[in-house]
Amino acid sequence: MKKSIKSRKPVLKSSRLKRSKKQALHKNQVLGLGTKMVNSVLIGLEENDASHVRKIVEGLDEYDLARLIESLDVDERKKLIEILGDHIDPSVFPELNEVVQEQVIETLDEDQIVNIVNELDSDEAVEILEHMDDDEQKSILSQLSPELKYQVSSSLHYPEDSAGRIMSRDFVAMPDSWTVKEAKNFLLTDENLPDEFFTIFLTDEKMRPTGEIALDKLLRAKASEKLAAIMDGEIVPIDVYTDQEEVAHMFREYGWRAAEVVDGKGHLVGVINLDDVVDIVHEEASEDIMHLSGAEEGDVYKSVNSIWKSRIPWLITNLIATLLASSVVRGFESIIAQISVLAVLMPIVASMGGTTGNQTLAVVVRALATKELTSRNTLRMIFKEFMVGFMNGFLFAGLIALITWLLFPDFQKLSLVIAIAMLCNLCIASLAGILIPLVLNKLKVDPAVSSGVFLIALTDSGGYFIFLGLAKLLLF
Amino acid sequence: MKKSIKSRKPVLKSSRLKRSKKQALHKNQVLGLGTKMVNSVLIGLEENDASHVRKIVEGLDEYDLARLIESLDVDERKKLIEILGDHIDPSVFPELNEVVQEQVIETLDEDQIVNIVNELDSDEAVEILEHMDDDEQKSILSQLSPELKYQVSSSLHYPEDSAGRIMSRDFVAMPDSWTVKEAKNFLLTDENLPDEFFTIFLTDEKMRPTGEIALDKLLRAKASEKLAAIMDGEIVPIDVYTDQEEVAHMFREYGWRAAEVVDGKGHLVGVINLDDVVDIVHEEASEDIMHLSGAEEGDVYKSVNSIWKSRIPWLITNLIATLLASSVVRGFESIIAQISVLAVLMPIVASMGGTTGNQTLAVVVRALATKELTSRNTLRMIFKEFMVGFMNGFLFAGLIALITWLLFPDFQKLSLVIAIAMLCNLCIASLAGILIPLVLNKLKVDPAVSSGVFLIALTDSGGYFIFLGLAKLLLF
Repeated sequence: MKKSIKSRKPVLKSSRLKRSKKQALHKNQVLGLGTKMVNSVLIGLEENDASHVRKIVEGLDEYDLARLIESLDVDERKKLIEILGDHIDPSVFPELNEVVQEQVIETLDEDQIVNIVNELDSDEAVEILEHMDDDEQKSILSQLSPELKYQVSSSLHYPEDSAGRIMSRDFVAMPDSWTVKEAKNFLLTDENLPDEFFTIFLTDEKMRPTGEIALDKLLRAKASEKLAAIMDGEIVPIDVYTDQEEVAHMFREYGWRAAEVVDGKGHLVGVINLDDVVDIVHEEASEDIMHLSGAEEGDVYKSVNSIWKSRIPWLITNLIATLLASSVVRGFESIIAQISVLAVLMPIVASMGGTTGNQTLAVVVRALATKELTSRNTLRMIFKEFMVGFMNGFLFAGLIALITWLLFPDFQKLSLVIAIAMLCNLCIASLAGILIPLVLNKLKVDPAVSSGVFLIALTDSGGYFIFLGLAKLLLF
Repeated sequence: MKKSIKSRKPVLKSSRLKRSKKQALHKNQVLGLGTKMVNSVLIGLEENDASHVRKIVEGLDEYDLARLIESLDVDERKKLIEILGDHIDPSVFPELNEVVQEQVIETLDEDQIVNIVNELDSDEAVEILEHMDDDEQKSILSQLSPELKYQVSSSLHYPEDSAGRIMSRDFVAMPDSWTVKEAKNFLLTDENLPDEFFTIFLTDEKMRPTGEIALDKLLRAKASEKLAAIMDGEIVPIDVYTDQEEVAHMFREYGWRAAEVVDGKGHLVGVINLDDVVDIVHEEASEDIMHLSGAEEGDVYKSVNSIWKSRIPWLITNLIATLLASSVVRGFESIIAQISVLAVLMPIVASMGGTTGNQTLAVVVRALATKELTSRNTLRMIFKEFMVGFMNGFLFAGLIALITWLLFPDFQKLSLVIAIAMLCNLCIASLAGILIPLVLNKLKVDPAVSSGVFLIALTDSGGYFIFLGLAKLLLF
């Protein structure tokens, strides 16, 4: 029987943490490794003192060892893994940040990977194998235990981030025709149960899910009762192809603690538990934050070189957007040569447009990700965001007109030009802030990744064009 | 006994959802209300047909009713609540988005609120009361049942977002000296148990937590065994004042399913369950996303007026930042008047700086929120981000020099000016992107809220100053 490592309560072995049993954790006092211990490991690594390092690391549980590995620099990390070699506890791997996990796996040879993966649950094994290239994946799969091999390759068959990929195949299922007594006896005597379970899943004779029972209900039920009579039968099985974001959404909206995953024929093939959902919610939100700014998750753990490379595409698209904006300015170069104060004021219009648009963009991208934006409220939201842009346009048009008039009292028409430009650009920005992500979403492009650069291209170019164009019309 | 509504499995009463029992949920097929039903409610609201609306709503469970209320416009929402009046099921309130919950509560009179709150768990009651002003809060507290009044006012005594505020006071605790048989008997016979529980918390005779037992372990243990012998004793009690972000962090890092909350004397006063943590992770991430862009959570549900007002402060700070940048440009107005092409190129330097800085900023703000940035790796991260900025500075300095040379072949010195300015500004931007949030964090200011505007002020003003300053030095 394999261990269900991910959801087990920590066995805190380090002496510092053992003390905390009696001593409550106070505000801002972070659980983790002492600086002394980390420094001691670092000295060991520098001096290539393998036995010293192993001795310290042996005292750590899988959670603290994972934190130690994550806290090291890329090179130190590699060295530590090499020193630990086969001494490394397989249960550490599921606890590692995804980026760090990949780095660590890369430093291991195939035999070591096979040994580690063979000790894991199928969903944890999948996480390690899914990022490998096909040849490596095949080669490792062929060396796994037959049962694990079957489970892992079935999961890998489903798309990344689908319910079939993330589900656990280690769960307790029973026929709903059993009595409470039969169920309790089975739990007491069966040797093949998962190390941890929280819900009992019930099926009909064809392995189609019919309901579920939380363990507290089982503990409180009469021995003679049929499981079908006490089960929660109002379940909503999830298709294997459902996206994990959708799964997390349903868990949150309907307060689920577990969900049944079924294949095309409606057979129960796996389950998803609440603790997997915590990770999904965290991961998807981090992705949105990073994508909105053109960075990537896990940058904290990456080398300078790989961070550098990952940020170039976004900077290049931004360069194109800003070159576009500057070509608009170039079209009005002769006007600027005559009235150079236009160059002083034009960034204000563009910048305020960008800020307005970004406010709307963040709300819309998040609302799309969390399914708060439905067919029912989309039109209303477009209207609301436009109204907000319009009202702010008026407010800041007035404000900037006043400021311009105070700065350049002899040049009153300038105030009019910048006020009209501000109003127009803020209206455009707010509309763009909602329409761009909506259109990208329709086109199945992740709106978090690319909305920003389209928005800035529009608000910068638009801002310059309206401001300088109006100046040309009204000042000459 | 009150119901533990939040974590109960949904009882999906609508006919559309009942069907899905046998029919698996497919990809992109969202759970929720049919458009027909929503439209029918809308027609009822328009025609003031209270009995029609009540009839439809009666068929919905608390989850779907919450989604219905959320999907309405602010005015429709108010009308629906007025029509439902005392017919509204109290269990809907904990399922509502925070912003919507506040709006709904505002439309109710005090008697109605008291009736609703009296039906809720203490942690759910706290969520409703914590946003009220002191007088209203006191008045409602005085009308609650004595037990609930005590529990709610104790929780309100702790700071917002602290463990004491969010913990549940409805849990199963036993002396660790009991046997498995005694425990099972207690669970079978006691009438005051919570509606749902997943873990049994063990204490010594002074109510100090000593361990916990997951229900699957209890089900599989021998009747004669002492609870102390089978419990997980390596628990880490959380102090009541611990921040919820910290709590969520520990749940994620250590794979917890439940945690004990203790007061200053180490007595067990409440518990936090994994399902509360899902909400915290979601909420904190949404907050970060919104704050980085100057928007607010719940904007989807707000009226135009309140969205508008909430966005003004951020736009004003941005206006100040951009006025600062434009005053830098003003200092070089005479140069621009002579070489107007400088106005064409200057936005490129500023914009690329802003983009570079924002990439770093997003990574750092998120790393601070998720505690990935520790004292150990902060210096390394500053160095790494500076190096990335430097390398991108070199790359894009070369690129922009080439582009400038192609656009203005007769003006070779211009390429040199823009290349140096680009390199400098990208270095400054990457340093600012990490140092600004770090400093704000040290000053106990939320780095997500205000880092962006400082960054843009620096990269815009800095970009213009370096570019135009260099132009003055080298071109004249």
